[in-house]
Amino acid sequence: MISPHAIVETDDIGEGVDIAEFAVVRSGASLGKGVRIHPHAVIEAGVRLDDGVEVFPGAYVGKEPKGAGATARAVRFDRRVIIGRGTSVGPHAVIYYDVEIGAGTLIGDGASIREQCRVGSSCIISRYVTVNYNTRIGDRTRIMDLTHITGNCVIGDDVFISVLVSTANDNEMVTRRYEEGKVVGPRIGSRVSIGEGACILPGVTVGDGALIGAGSVVTKDVEPHALVIGVPARFVRKIGDEKL
Amino acid sequence: MISPHAIVETDDIGEGVDIAEFAVVRSGASLGKGVRIHPHAVIEAGVRLDDGVEVFPGAYVGKEPKGAGATARAVRFDRRVIIGRGTSVGPHAVIYYDVEIGAGTLIGDGASIREQCRVGSSCIISRYVTVNYNTRIGDRTRIMDLTHITGNCVIGDDVFISVLVSTANDNEMVTRRYEEGKVVGPRIGSRVSIGEGACILPGVTVGDGALIGAGSVVTKDVEPHALVIGVPARFVRKIGDEKL
Amino acid sequence: MISPHAIVETDDIGEGVDIAEFAVVRSGASLGKGVRIHPHAVIEAGVRLDDGVEVFPGAYVGKEPKGAGATARAVRFDRRVIIGRGTSVGPHAVIYYDVEIGAGTLIGDGASIREQCRVGSSCIISRYVTVNYNTRIGDRTRIMDLTHITGNCVIGDDVFISVLVSTANDNEMVTRRYEEGKVVGPRIGSRVSIGEGACILPGVTVGDGALIGAGSVVTKDVEPHALVIGVPARFVRKIGDEKL
Repeated sequence: MISPHAIVETDDIGEGVDIAEFAVVRSGASLGKGVRIHPHAVIEAGVRLDDGVEVFPGAYVGKEPKGAGATARAVRFDRRVIIGRGTSVGPHAVIYYDVEIGAGTLIGDGASIREQCRVGSSCIISRYVTVNYNTRIGDRTRIMDLTHITGNCVIGDDVFISVLVSTANDNEMVTRRYEEGKVVGPRIGSRVSIGEGACILPGVTVGDGALIGAGSVVTKDVEPHALVIGVPARFVRKIGDEKL
Repeated sequence: MISPHAIVETDDIGEGVDIAEFAVVRSGASLGKGVRIHPHAVIEAGVRLDDGVEVFPGAYVGKEPKGAGATARAVRFDRRVIIGRGTSVGPHAVIYYDVEIGAGTLIGDGASIREQCRVGSSCIISRYVTVNYNTRIGDRTRIMDLTHITGNCVIGDDVFISVLVSTANDNEMVTRRYEEGKVVGPRIGSRVSIGEGACILPGVTVGDGALIGAGSVVTKDVEPHALVIGVPARFVRKIGDEKL
Repeated sequence: MISPHAIVETDDIGEGVDIAEFAVVRSGASLGKGVRIHPHAVIEAGVRLDDGVEVFPGAYVGKEPKGAGATARAVRFDRRVIIGRGTSVGPHAVIYYDVEIGAGTLIGDGASIREQCRVGSSCIISRYVTVNYNTRIGDRTRIMDLTHITGNCVIGDDVFISVLVSTANDNEMVTRRYEEGKVVGPRIGSRVSIGEGACILPGVTVGDGALIGAGSVVTKDVEPHALVIGVPARFVRKIGDEKL
């Protein structure tokens, strides 16, 4: 049912779509079958929601990145978003333009995903996780509450990143200049697990199947299947099949 | 005053209730005397707001947990919420179904409290604090900004938890399977204080009156009235009545 | 264009103002030329938005602080907000009453700035950053995602604070009483850089041009131009002009 109190400018709407009161769906948005839009959600032009997508109250899909003035980095983006079948976009989540998200993924309350990001299928991007520009996240990867994923970062499949984990690419912290080639986020392999409160420094590579202890500060590359712990994180032992 | 621009489906509304423009109050919600609902708030069916509750713009009370697909855990909940007399629900806060909150509690901007949680009276659950499923929080406990409280966790009375503290129950981090009995959050006694940026590991018990230093990583149980500090946290000394 | 679906009570509106559907602009608010208000934003009485300010969906400008019951501290504030020319207020950001923000500043998604704060020009206060009461932030300072800036804190110009950094003033943590003179946040000089996940303890002074390593816990004053690292943070060396 489409509420008479919603603003619906598009007519590219599948069967069984539900749009609640005070939602805004702009001209040029496309809604698959059975899509459900809760009150106060905003869906901008160029957004494609596949069949069965649910968008919770206050979520905002299709935000234009703002680069004016204060940011060091030129902003490039396409004015489109694709959200896969059955994916759920939590209340007050913000999905910027030029984002693609796979099927069956859960975007938590207030999670914010910036331009040029690609997120796989069956992922969890939990509450208030912020993902910066131009980052790739694989399939079945879970990123828990209040964690920050930096820009220019690559994360594999079946990864678990716990709560309040920080990642950075800000070598600019020192130079104060944004130089594209020098701003590199971590490379995190597949089947990696990262404990709560860990910090991963810019440019670090974490090998497949590695395990990073809670509260660790990872300052250099981590070998595949290595367990590292501490500040700075040190190698403890190789871990085996119990993780699989 | 009830705005003609609000959607108000219930008639279970006390005297002196104020409902602002573009708020949505569903059939089956119950509002006590003097309740104040700001613009764009959404109150779902089965929610009881006691006398004098104030709900700020964009807050969402009565969210259905989404367990489909991506989450490992079956989701159980009752379709009701009870919010006690005089409690304040901040802008964009999200209260899931099957939550009870006591009287005179302050829920901060964007705080998010999941199903099966119980929060006491005169608490502060501050800005962007996320509380996971099935957690108990006592009375007069203050949890500050951007802290995460894990699921299956118990927190006593008169506790102070500072900003950006992480707690976890994710031994599943290693096994990758959700086994109900093995997922246990910390047990935090009464009158405990936890400093900013601390990490508390799964299953740890923190005794009454203990004090945990800022940035500590607590990997094992803490005795009552102990001061612990460091990575990993080590016992420093017993603390006495200055805390009372 | 002012949408017929918006609630606009003020007539103090400059040329070329855009107010979208379901926005609420109260009587006594003042909007400069070319101001753009997105859907579901709420602008309270006493708020002045200078020319070219853009307010994204769901942002709430002019929140009354709630001190009732649960908070230890008496709340004082003026019922006004000033937001400078060309500043951008992100989706779901919350600006309390008695806040002034300079020109060309970027307030990120869900950032929350409390009463008695002053933020300079050309700053970035990024996603879900929370700034507590009575804090001063200089010009061209960047505070990244999910960082908390405590109350009674002073931060200089050209500062970079990375993601998930915590600051505190809560010596009350121990005493449980709020005594105004004893609650002092850090003093952070100009051109300071603070790495991801660092904790800065109450009352610490960080000198101009200092650099604090990722994950450090800063327990005592840091000299100007010093590099400090570790838990607790220790002096490594003086740093020179490469930062400028």
